Amino acid sequence: MGKSIQVGIVGARGYTGAECLRLLTGHPEFTVSVVCSTTIAGKTIASVFPSLSLADTSLAQLNFSSYSPEALKQCQVVIFTTPHGVAASLVPALLELGIRVVDLSADFRLRDPSVWQQYYHSEHPNFALVKQACYGLTEYEREKITSAQLVANPGCYPTAVSLALIPLLREQCISAQGIIADCKSGVSGAGRKVEEGYLLSELRSNFFAYGLPAHRHLPEIEQGLTQYGCLEEGALGITFVPHLLPVPRGILATLYCQSKLPLQQVYQVLQASYHHEPFVKVLPLGELPQLVQVVGTNLCAIGLSQTPQGTLVIVSAIDNMIKGAAGQALQNMNRMFGFEETLGLSAIPLWP
Amino acid sequence: MGKSIQVGIVGARGYTGAECLRLLTGHPEFTVSVVCSTTIAGKTIASVFPSLSLADTSLAQLNFSSYSPEALKQCQVVIFTTPHGVAASLVPALLELGIRVVDLSADFRLRDPSVWQQYYHSEHPNFALVKQACYGLTEYEREKITSAQLVANPGCYPTAVSLALIPLLREQCISAQGIIADCKSGVSGAGRKVEEGYLLSELRSNFFAYGLPAHRHLPEIEQGLTQYGCLEEGALGITFVPHLLPVPRGILATLYCQSKLPLQQVYQVLQASYHHEPFVKVLPLGELPQLVQVVGTNLCAIGLSQTPQGTLVIVSAIDNMIKGAAGQALQNMNRMFGFEETLGLSAIPLWP
Amino acid sequence: MGKSIQVGIVGARGYTGAECLRLLTGHPEFTVSVVCSTTIAGKTIASVFPSLSLADTSLAQLNFSSYSPEALKQCQVVIFTTPHGVAASLVPALLELGIRVVDLSADFRLRDPSVWQQYYHSEHPNFALVKQACYGLTEYEREKITSAQLVANPGCYPTAVSLALIPLLREQCISAQGIIADCKSGVSGAGRKVEEGYLLSELRSNFFAYGLPAHRHLPEIEQGLTQYGCLEEGALGITFVPHLLPVPRGILATLYCQSKLPLQQVYQVLQASYHHEPFVKVLPLGELPQLVQVVGTNLCAIGLSQTPQGTLVIVSAIDNMIKGAAGQALQNMNRMFGFEETLGLSAIPLWP
Amino acid sequence: MGKSIQVGIVGARGYTGAECLRLLTGHPEFTVSVVCSTTIAGKTIASVFPSLSLADTSLAQLNFSSYSPEALKQCQVVIFTTPHGVAASLVPALLELGIRVVDLSADFRLRDPSVWQQYYHSEHPNFALVKQACYGLTEYEREKITSAQLVANPGCYPTAVSLALIPLLREQCISAQGIIADCKSGVSGAGRKVEEGYLLSELRSNFFAYGLPAHRHLPEIEQGLTQYGCLEEGALGITFVPHLLPVPRGILATLYCQSKLPLQQVYQVLQASYHHEPFVKVLPLGELPQLVQVVGTNLCAIGLSQTPQGTLVIVSAIDNMIKGAAGQALQNMNRMFGFEETLGLSAIPLWP
Repeated sequence: MGKSIQVGIVGARGYTGAECLRLLTGHPEFTVSVVCSTTIAGKTIASVFPSLSLADTSLAQLNFSSYSPEALKQCQVVIFTTPHGVAASLVPALLELGIRVVDLSADFRLRDPSVWQQYYHSEHPNFALVKQACYGLTEYEREKITSAQLVANPGCYPTAVSLALIPLLREQCISAQGIIADCKSGVSGAGRKVEEGYLLSELRSNFFAYGLPAHRHLPEIEQGLTQYGCLEEGALGITFVPHLLPVPRGILATLYCQSKLPLQQVYQVLQASYHHEPFVKVLPLGELPQLVQVVGTNLCAIGLSQTPQGTLVIVSAIDNMIKGAAGQALQNMNRMFGFEETLGLSAIPLWP
Repeated sequence: MGKSIQVGIVGARGYTGAECLRLLTGHPEFTVSVVCSTTIAGKTIASVFPSLSLADTSLAQLNFSSYSPEALKQCQVVIFTTPHGVAASLVPALLELGIRVVDLSADFRLRDPSVWQQYYHSEHPNFALVKQACYGLTEYEREKITSAQLVANPGCYPTAVSLALIPLLREQCISAQGIIADCKSGVSGAGRKVEEGYLLSELRSNFFAYGLPAHRHLPEIEQGLTQYGCLEEGALGITFVPHLLPVPRGILATLYCQSKLPLQQVYQVLQASYHHEPFVKVLPLGELPQLVQVVGTNLCAIGLSQTPQGTLVIVSAIDNMIKGAAGQALQNMNRMFGFEETLGLSAIPLWP
Repeated sequence: MGKSIQVGIVGARGYTGAECLRLLTGHPEFTVSVVCSTTIAGKTIASVFPSLSLADTSLAQLNFSSYSPEALKQCQVVIFTTPHGVAASLVPALLELGIRVVDLSADFRLRDPSVWQQYYHSEHPNFALVKQACYGLTEYEREKITSAQLVANPGCYPTAVSLALIPLLREQCISAQGIIADCKSGVSGAGRKVEEGYLLSELRSNFFAYGLPAHRHLPEIEQGLTQYGCLEEGALGITFVPHLLPVPRGILATLYCQSKLPLQQVYQVLQASYHHEPFVKVLPLGELPQLVQVVGTNLCAIGLSQTPQGTLVIVSAIDNMIKGAAGQALQNMNRMFGFEETLGLSAIPLWP
Repeated sequence: MGKSIQVGIVGARGYTGAECLRLLTGHPEFTVSVVCSTTIAGKTIASVFPSLSLADTSLAQLNFSSYSPEALKQCQVVIFTTPHGVAASLVPALLELGIRVVDLSADFRLRDPSVWQQYYHSEHPNFALVKQACYGLTEYEREKITSAQLVANPGCYPTAVSLALIPLLREQCISAQGIIADCKSGVSGAGRKVEEGYLLSELRSNFFAYGLPAHRHLPEIEQGLTQYGCLEEGALGITFVPHLLPVPRGILATLYCQSKLPLQQVYQVLQASYHHEPFVKVLPLGELPQLVQVVGTNLCAIGLSQTPQGTLVIVSAIDNMIKGAAGQALQNMNRMFGFEETLGLSAIPLWP
């Protein structure tokens, strides 16, 4: 029996596009019928992604098309993995056709137009649409996602940081002031950008902080923590510094904050918050997550410790390409189409 | 509904053991009920393999047991991933209990006891059993495997080399003399050996040939090529030199030989030989395989080219942990228990 | 003309020992005459260190000896690269022979015996000697080092953290409270430890925090910042969390603190403090250091930025094996024997 | 006292240019006064090469100039690290000014214009000059190099292959027919090419053969082996297949050939040929070189073994950026200007 839901991907030539293709190929209900990328229209998937070149032939031989709403008409859902600004322009035509959309770019994440302008240095092409969009942090937006026409899939850093901090802020376990989020990400987070600094020769033994003084994921983190952490606007004080790891995949966020409760109680709150979640794993108290526990999976692993100075140290780890992008998108799509949320997302890490 | 076949793994503390656990967890019909490793008896899988620590709880919390035939009584099949010499001693008791065995060590591969002694520097513990064993190069032993009680799973290098050369020898496309097999393997091929030279610090920027003058996989390669390539004993002249790649996974074998036919005809023979095989992919003529096309999969990718000197260059690539070990074992087990050969083996490479 | 000063190395079989050998071989005035490592006595340097096997023959063929004061009699200075507890026992006999000592272990770093006991879980073998020892943070102890008989070379993390924070604390640019030091180190910092987690296969795609709740370098950092930052005992509040990077070399410390002065003024203090230092480089304001700028050198590179929240972010980078160990030792030895401090330490990074 | 010889580098924005800058900075007699790269004219070296940004200030702050013969007038020698075709056009003007030239591109290596045309798909811009050029394989052209105005520095693969095979061919130890050169190179050999396949994300776990059916270094290898191996034109039959290693530096060439003499005698010939060479190290019989023994040095390490089939296996290892490019250039420049050949070239590998 065939797969039931047809999916299109716009901007499918990058790493996130490849990851959507990989995950959807392994999913029993979704099938990718259209991949759009105007710059490489006519090329096959096999010629663009070596990893997919020997996959089942129909996928490998699928051709990229130029973008047009007509090309996507047969799809029930379209995923955007385009640079910012693109989805905002193209999405309305698809919504009018009754096609549901999951956008992996930043276009529909920020609710305040002035913040968008400040961080993206351009006027937003279609801010009216932002209000329609549902923020796709699955664990906190399940109901809305189920019926959403347009999902704004969260950024990778905001996913890792927010899943760890939201329950602790909401339950007033930690102070909202003075939080430090020292984050480290594999380079696939930068996309398939062809720049000297990302060449194996130049990156392999390198490591550095970037995005200072204020990375674009900062306002998204602030917005999410405020909303789901139940804080008043402006109550939050968070410092966010991302670093580039010389590996392809994985985010590890080391979060420093001041505890308002004894460690054991903080731990119980965290534990209780995610006890029933299939993809958020709170480690035994004192254990901290490692990238190899989550890379290749849709999991977010969270660990807790406390230093002699009393600082609470929370470490949160995800695969930026999966839980931080394509996996969370699929988790949302599972909800949108009435499948079990974990369907097609149960892989174990490839190791070693 | 539960999975139907119970599996035991003996020697499950190494990389091959971990890979069997990963693949079996994703398989719809096999379930791992017992893992034996006397040296770490009592430990949980989660504590030994970080990659499996967040997997579905029942697996992660499974305890290693000391080896005993009783402990494995409930299993219909037992996989050995032990050092050489172990399986040969332990297997008879299991066979008597009616348990089928797939051995990933070298114990039952070599059919000539004097060759065993020469390469393993010890007398074989139970050579009578070798005759009972079926060599598990699936594509060439399908029928025997289906009913085998004891399968000798091929070595990783022999798998990569043999799949490429057998049809060309058998159809007399190439000379059996003067073949060079320059092979390169990721370090997981050495197992979870804790030695200085395998430390990240020492290996990461290193590369070297090893195993000279004669690696243990040489006689296995010779035996397989002779048998399935339909050569007389001693007709074969092959030079095999393995190298260690500073990556965890993947074997790329570059094979040099003298062609007896025009390139196009050789290509057609290769193509025709594997046209219906789900796991052996012959690339378009002139294209050569890359590790990223096969790592994470049970595929063997083979490409052909010819130099201006007329030398035929055949490149064969596999994931040493999957097609070269645990994946081929599972392919064989699928046959042994009447499942579709590809069941649980359709993963696409994790990339990038 | 021969080199003038004879050097011995005790515990020379690890990475720090190899790095001392490499740097001393390129130094015009020091010559290594004796290398002691009882467990591998009789072996040549070439057989223990592949990287030194083709170096000038006299070094490569030098044999490891068992430790004895007699074996080292001919040396004017002896470097210890032993595990903690060893140097404290062996050094007195050498000092009596008039031999000067640079200890790269932790034995003489901590001035408070109860702190030692708390962090090293044993009584210190010879605390009287600690008072004689000079802490070898060159930039802050130049005069004492010049005449020191016994130098306690600083730890790698303390070097990176202290060089960045001391001038800012001393000049009251930043608050001594609430400092966060999120540090990342290459794995050579763990020494040539042969453990599963350091194997290429297991570490290459991994990243994690370790040493929680309190790493042994924390009290050394606190002691140094208090002393050279001119703080009262207990005035300092610092949180230190180290992480393991999947590269052999390099430390990047990301330091978060509250500024008491405008950014520009803080920057001027930092700049002025190190303007004349050959090995401490303050980057232009807003630029942050990368590992590739310092790995292979004795440099410490420091950069400054400030987030919209007002948090001061200071990034400090060193090569843990050079400025964090063997290079700083040689810098100290240059002072001890009256050579220019930079002699033999002017290498440029090997790149790419 | 200042350094005596002024050097210019044309095309200095790539990896070879950076390596020349690094080596020349550490050389006591050469000083780089001019770096030309028209596309980035006006930029400083610090802004183009992070590894040189903290080096001694005068170098880091040197500006790239547009190319012109005038700009280079002050130089006594100019190094070209340009793509093929460039040096052939620009060199005549410099030679007329009396400036000596070392060309690291392929422009003056091939002596047969039809071979050039076949491999470079264009007519050679100035073939007359090729006859004037001296091939810079130092160990075999010492006298000519000393007085050469124009040196054609050898390619990286030809250096590794030729140094191993020349003495064996010349002394008729091996058959000239049927030689296989299976070569593996780090990716810096491809230059600072910004292509998807060289990104860390895509290359780090990859490995593959390339350049089939006939790589451009093949005719250079054939020409060198014929000339220095004292063979008649066309007597040589060599198969050359390069592979890309996922590391920045290093070439390991595994050479297979048929021996005409007993192994011990072959070894003695090799040993005797290079006994007095400072940069060619023949390992003890049976030992094979590893990349970590040569990366970071100007050494070529050669080892010998023989398989049970009788095939002679010769492994030759160099650092492609040093002995295969900038180091051999400097070795030649040392000769050209009357310095000791090893001056500035005695570094030991950075390890681990």
